Order: sequence, then structure tokens, then C-alpha cells
Amino acid sequence: MDEHAQILGELVKSVQILEECKEFALLVPEVRVNIVYALSNAESTGDVAGIDGRITVVNGYPKAAGLPKFGASDHMARAILEIRKYRPEIRAGINFKYDERLKKIIVEYARLKNLSVGGIDRSKEPEKERLSLIKSMPWKIRYLKEVYGFIPDIFYETAGWGKEPLFVVVSAEPIKAASISVEIAREYARTLLNL
Amino acid sequence: MDEHAQILGELVKSVQILEECKEFALLVPEVRVNIVYALSNAESTGDVAGIDGRITVVNGYPKAAGLPKFGASDHMARAILEIRKYRPEIRAGINFKYDERLKKIIVEYARLKNLSVGGIDRSKEPEKERLSLIKSMPWKIRYLKEVYGFIPDIFYETAGWGKEPLFVVVSAEPIKAASISVEIAREYARTLLNL
Amino acid sequence: MDEHAQILGELVKSVQILEECKEFALLVPEVRVNIVYALSNAESTGDVAGIDGRITVVNGYPKAAGLPKFGASDHMARAILEIRKYRPEIRAGINFKYDERLKKIIVEYARLKNLSVGGIDRSKEPEKERLSLIKSMPWKIRYLKEVYGFIPDIFYETAGWGKEPLFVVVSAEPIKAASISVEIAREYARTLLNL
Amino acid sequence: MDEHAQILGELVKSVQILEECKEFALLVPEVRVNIVYALSNAESTGDVAGIDGRITVVNGYPKAAGLPKFGASDHMARAILEIRKYRPEIRAGINFKYDERLKKIIVEYARLKNLSVGGIDRSKEPEKERLSLIKSMPWKIRYLKEVYGFIPDIFYETAGWGKEPLFVVVSAEPIKAASISVEIAREYARTLLNL
Repeated sequence: MDEHAQILGELVKSVQILEECKEFALLVPEVRVNIVYALSNAESTGDVAGIDGRITVVNGYPKAAGLPKFGASDHMARAILEIRKYRPEIRAGINFKYDERLKKIIVEYARLKNLSVGGIDRSKEPEKERLSLIKSMPWKIRYLKEVYGFIPDIFYETAGWGKEPLFVVVSAEPIKAASISVEIAREYARTLLNL
Repeated sequence: MDEHAQILGELVKSVQILEECKEFALLVPEVRVNIVYALSNAESTGDVAGIDGRITVVNGYPKAAGLPKFGASDHMARAILEIRKYRPEIRAGINFKYDERLKKIIVEYARLKNLSVGGIDRSKEPEKERLSLIKSMPWKIRYLKEVYGFIPDIFYETAGWGKEPLFVVVSAEPIKAASISVEIAREYARTLLNL
Repeated sequence: MDEHAQILGELVKSVQILEECKEFALLVPEVRVNIVYALSNAESTGDVAGIDGRITVVNGYPKAAGLPKFGASDHMARAILEIRKYRPEIRAGINFKYDERLKKIIVEYARLKNLSVGGIDRSKEPEKERLSLIKSMPWKIRYLKEVYGFIPDIFYETAGWGKEPLFVVVSAEPIKAASISVEIAREYARTLLNL
Repeated sequence: MDEHAQILGELVKSVQILEECKEFALLVPEVRVNIVYALSNAESTGDVAGIDGRITVVNGYPKAAGLPKFGASDHMARAILEIRKYRPEIRAGINFKYDERLKKIIVEYARLKNLSVGGIDRSKEPEKERLSLIKSMPWKIRYLKEVYGFIPDIFYETAGWGKEPLFVVVSAEPIKAASISVEIAREYARTLLNL
């Protein structure tokens, strides 16, 4: 069996889960969403597949701009590569928007589902790391390890200079990450309706 | 490993081969192109994946309208299911336009590549089969078997009543079918340039 | 004001009407749908705008494959150019699938809305016209004129050799044609549900 | 004539200019690109059309995720509404990425083309404005007015807390803004090749 095809196919299934969930459109941030899946022996971003053009919102629904492709993600791919140094079973991840209301929902959701949650305070990031595309990601993941003792299943990054605050969900495979994301999105939509 | 994901992923790779070949736009027929891939134990069209919305031409390039999806094809899926009764190793197929010039190119191409070619003369189709969505496909494939003694790797259907003439390429997996199609498309483009 | 932009913009609005109507997916034929709009002094297909890649079905909804573009349609553009010889006020048209049940619904719909309906019997088409891409359209439109005395607002073509049967709606501008089409699609969906 | 259609159509033409320019993919920022066009009497973001889902990069080319639509933009729409208080002739704008190399190219380009250039130093933004979605834009445009005495044709915002640095080009209509952007993109690509 071809692991590359397997990975692209799991991403297709994950995109279908996201595209069918109208509420997930509420979680699409300015930088849009990507969902990634790494080869079991991934070493570089070329070994990680993501959605070409990311996932945006069209006609009110989440919509993948292109097909899954190896090398299509930079930021999320580097996050997964870095996380795997501490949790080698993690091969997939997805990002979505961060806000205070969502944080409350996710903390409660994670408690019910027995998932770990953490946050990166980017105001603590030293300037040397902050200004470097290469060094920033290792700092962030190390920060999680140091603060929590492990890399949480769900974590957020607060806003940084030039950086939108974001949530990230990581998992062994992308359908899990997509399913968690749409459950959170539906809960978020319910909360907004009840305001 | 998940065979469904494997199949969706191989179709993603096949679409990438087709989308990168501008010349393949010349082969897109009125009914558009689909490329399908069946589960190894496929019994119904729901067990065959195809491209949701088919492959059309946008900005001069072939473009998949949607993602690969099980049940997304009817015509090509039924063709593969029927062909598998005679050639069980066949699990993938693609259709594209038919014309006389293309037929000449394909006959020559198939000779060089050691592929078999055949044609279905739809004027021979009995009315009972012709008027039935269900019976027409078995008749067509049986026709090939009877005329050629086997199901050819590449075959065309001449125009029928309400039916555009089309070529079909079948193979064990879709990357092969896509690769054959883009080679034919490039040869067709060269021929058109030399007219 | 720029008439080209006006036309592209009216087509955008028409596509939005079609894409929001899930029932219209039921009317998408094998050859897909195009909707076209001609410059007021259109003389060739380059003076008629249509949807690049046509309108297909993705995730169960009608979906334009590309943007409106001048020269993007051949068949529907030639139909409108030919119709304008008899009804110069007609500048827009859309095609969709034909079947017997739909024909009944449309005849009734047209009666209520005071629209004219007609049909082209392609079995009457002389071989000389049938085999010619250029001569077939003039014959079809002349046929309507001769049989009905005018070009109907809605007409169908029965199946021909290599030709899918289709309905065509024509109008002065495309929003009208799109609106008629979605009304018919909703009625058709109701009928299918009641079977 | 319908001004809404006119605006949607001009945006279609602008998207075609951007999509045909492969080099423009180099200017697509994390937050993606939007191009907007306001009604002549626009008062709210619903009176400004933008690209639904923004413009992203697929297969290496810029690609509009959806069709032009009124209300599809928030950030760029509010920028144009605010700028019109000082320069009422401005009705269109586009954003793209900012970096130091691009800034040099744009300053030189603007000099040759007799366009004005300016920049917003977001580190000067008072906290009250910075934390408010509503107040930040008026502050930014007022800043330009105060520093330059007018609103420049091209301006950048440096990175802010949670905000990616960006360039914005404004003009009376969007084809001008799109054309300027692709000229800059081609110059930027040439510079990268010569490094």
C-alpha cells in the first residue's frame, strides 16, 4: 500500500467532515484553516500533506480551495514536525480561530472528552525567536512542554506581533482532529445563539 | 490500512496528473470527464469513487469541480462494475472525447504501448437495451467481449441516440489510466498544431 | 458604463440564484448547465458571456466551475445568436435536462406564467444539418419558427445522434432565465417527492 | 443600468487579471487577498462587494475561492469606507503581503508611476483603538492623513499585535488596483530571481 495515497485520502475524508459542517465556518480565522497529515517518518514539510490554498468560507460553508497535496502547508506542517519530537504518535493537526468565548467552550469540551488543553503566551517569546521564522516554532512547542510537562491535544497561541491568535488540535490522524473541530464548532454556534 | 482512503488518495494523485496537463483540456467532452476507482470487492456504484462534479475546463486547464467521493459517478462506475465480470483486475477507468483524428492517434499509441483497442458500434444496440439505463451497459461490455474476445484496455463508443461518442481507458489503478490519457492528449495537441 | 462588466455582473447574480437552489441540482444534465448573456450588438460567440467550465453539482449543490467570461460558451452562445435573428430582444439563455415528467411540469408552469413552450424534434433534422456543427443550430431555430410561428420562451430538443435531450429557457436578461429555472426545479422536486 | 451588476462585473474582470498572473501568487499573504469595490454612495460594508472566500493560491496560481458578492469583505470594505471620507473618489482597494524587499520595489514603482506611498506605524496605535475592531480603522486612516496630509494611493501597515503587516492599493475602480498589483508582483518576481 502507498502511504502517500493513504494520507491524501484521509485528508479528503477530513475535508468532507469539515465542509459538511456549516458551523465550522464560524471558526475560520483570517489566515484560514489548514489540516495536515504527516508521513510516519516525516522529516521535512515536504513529507506533510495539507490543503492546497487552505480551507476558506464560500457561500457560508467551509470550502477547501484545492486538493490535498504534500508540501502545501508550511506553518501547520512545521508545528507537527516539532510536536513529534515530544509526542511521536502525533501526525495530524488543524488550526482555527481563537477568542475568549471559544476558549471557555474548549476547556469544558476537553474536560468532558478527557483531552488535554494548553496555551502559549506569545508575550513571553524572546525577541530572537520571535523574529525568526525557523526558531519561533521550536520555542512555542518547547514552551508547552515546559509549562505543561507534555504537548496538549488542544492548544492556543495568543496574538503575537503580526500573528493572529489561533487554536490548534493535534491527533494521530486527521479525521479525529476534524471531528473534534466540528464538535467544538457546533457547541460554539449554540453558545452564540443563546447570547 | 483503510482501502477507502487509499482509493480517494490515488484519485487525488490522478487528478493532479490531469490538472497539470493543459493539453488534456482538448479531450474534455460535452459530458465532462470522470475518473473512477473501485473497491477491490466493489458490487455497486456506491463502492466506486469518482470526482464529485466531474472534471471540467477552467481558465484553459482541466479542473476537478469537487473532491473524490464514493458514489460520485454513475456511468463510469457501472462500466467498471460490468467490465470486472470479464476482467476482474480492472478497477479504474476514465472517459474522454471521441473523434476520428483522436481514434487514429490512439490506435497508433496503443500499438506502440502494447495496449488493446476496441470500439462499440452503438447503431448495433437493440432498442430494448438502448432505452434502458440498466441494460445498456451490460450490452456494451458484452458486445466488446463478443467482437474482440476480451475487453480492450481502451475502447470507444460511437454516438448513440442522445449519447455523445466517448473513449474509455481502463486499468488496474487510476494513475495508469490518467497517465495514458495525458500522453494521448499531448500527442493529439501535437497533431492539431501540425495541421 | 461598461456593457461588458454589466453582463459579467448580471451573470454573477444569476449564478448566485442557481447555486442557492439545491433543487436545481436535479436539473443538471450530463453536459452540465451553461447560462449566457450577449452584448446588445453581439455578432459572434466572443460577444456572448457564459460560465467558464459550466455549472456542475458539487456536494449536492449547483456550483459554477469558474467565473463568467466572454467566449466561454459555444452551444448556448450560438443558440442565442441564432434566436436573435427572429427575436432581437432575446439576449440570455440557460439549458437544463429534459425528461417526460419535467416536460409536463414545464407545460403547466408556462401556462400559468403566460410563457410560450415548444419543442424541436431532432429526428426531423436532415442529415446535412445534423452532421454539421455550423448548420445544425440554424436548422433548429428555423424549425421552431416554422412549427410555432415564433421562437418560444422555453423549448426542448429531443435526443439526437450523439446529443442529449435538453430544455432551453431564453429571456431578455439572465436573472429572468435563472429565476424561471429555479421555480421549475422546485416544482420538479415537489413532484418527485410525491411519487 | 444596474450599479450592483456593474460592480460585480468589474470585480470579475479584476479577478481575471490577478488569476492570470502567476507572479501575484508571491504576494498572497497569510490572511489571503481581497479586492473590493464600493457603490458610489456606499455607507456600510453591505454596500461594498468583495470576493467570497478571498483570493488564495491553488496549483501555484492566484485563485478566487468564490464569486464577487456584496458584503463579502469586512476589513478591506471598512478601509475603503473610511478612506472615502478624505478621498471620495476612491471606491476600490486590494491588499497583499508586506516585506522590506517589496517596500523598496513599491517605493520605486510608485515614483515612476507618479503614485503616492505611505505607511502606518502600528506601534503608534493607542491601546484604546488597537483593542477595538471599530476604532482601529478610523485611527489608521486618520494617521495617514495626519502624517502625509492625504491618503496615499499605496500604503502599508506594519505588523500589529495579532495583525500581519500588509500593503493596500486604493483606486477609483478595481481594474486599476489589480493592474498595479500585478505590475508590482512581476517586478518582485524579477528581483527574487536576481538575488
